[in-house]
Amino acid sequence: MISSRRISAVVLAVSLTAVSSVGRSEEAGMAGARAAVEQGNARFSEAIARSDVKAVAALYTEDAIMLPERGAMVKGRQAIGEFWKTAMDGGVKSVTLTTLDVGANGDLAHEVGNVLLMINVEGRPPATASAKYVVVWKREADGWKMHRDIWNDPPPE
Amino acid sequence: MISSRRISAVVLAVSLTAVSSVGRSEEAGMAGARAAVEQGNARFSEAIARSDVKAVAALYTEDAIMLPERGAMVKGRQAIGEFWKTAMDGGVKSVTLTTLDVGANGDLAHEVGNVLLMINVEGRPPATASAKYVVVWKREADGWKMHRDIWNDPPPE
Repeated sequence: MISSRRISAVVLAVSLTAVSSVGRSEEAGMAGARAAVEQGNARFSEAIARSDVKAVAALYTEDAIMLPERGAMVKGRQAIGEFWKTAMDGGVKSVTLTTLDVGANGDLAHEVGNVLLMINVEGRPPATASAKYVVVWKREADGWKMHRDIWNDPPPE
Repeated sequence: MISSRRISAVVLAVSLTAVSSVGRSEEAGMAGARAAVEQGNARFSEAIARSDVKAVAALYTEDAIMLPERGAMVKGRQAIGEFWKTAMDGGVKSVTLTTLDVGANGDLAHEVGNVLLMINVEGRPPATASAKYVVVWKREADGWKMHRDIWNDPPPE
């Protein structure tokens, strides 16, 4: 048996939902973009973990631009794939991405996050490196891709 | 008197214009975003040159996030204004921004560029610092604002 109090609670919940539906499609788009960004990041981490250069490169747009810390800009999917191949050959074993903020409008989204790299070079103790980043994501026919990718050093400890 | 050759040239030009009108509104939007970004950058440089903290802050969105090199994230227009006040108090006299690339979709645009800072501290020789950057611009009711702002060091020379 449902109490009248419970029914009131349900009615209130429905009313609040109706009120908050202002800007609902914008919020839905934002939630979709955030899910797409997090899914893209999961794929990126998995691809790095299995040293799959092709899968890493496929997560960038054909005309992506990457701005590495203390490095020259890297332009285009192929060159970015080569950048990550060099990084993996140099000992990068895993990448952990933590998304802190996502905003989106139409086919563009922007992400702010933190990244933690695990670096393992034979004969040396395992090391880590961290950075904060901004990625501009672009929705293409086959899904959201990284279009602009830049990071920099965290504050000194 | 107009020669038939000239008329042919005009017809050809009109035909080419018609062909290239595919994607014309997208190009117009992109050109508009690029002009807005360059105008925003000009205003930013002017505001820095006259040490106008309020005008600098007004070029950012209320909920902007800045990711300074080797510094903690700076969140919100007011905190970003304070960041630039500290930079100007610390000797930053001018900022020269060179836009290298702009892309846009709807109310979001992304910019890649280079920045050159002129730093003048009393009793020391004038110095410069440079960086490459990505800025995410957002169109608001009163114009395009910087929404995400991150830079990092150029390659070592």
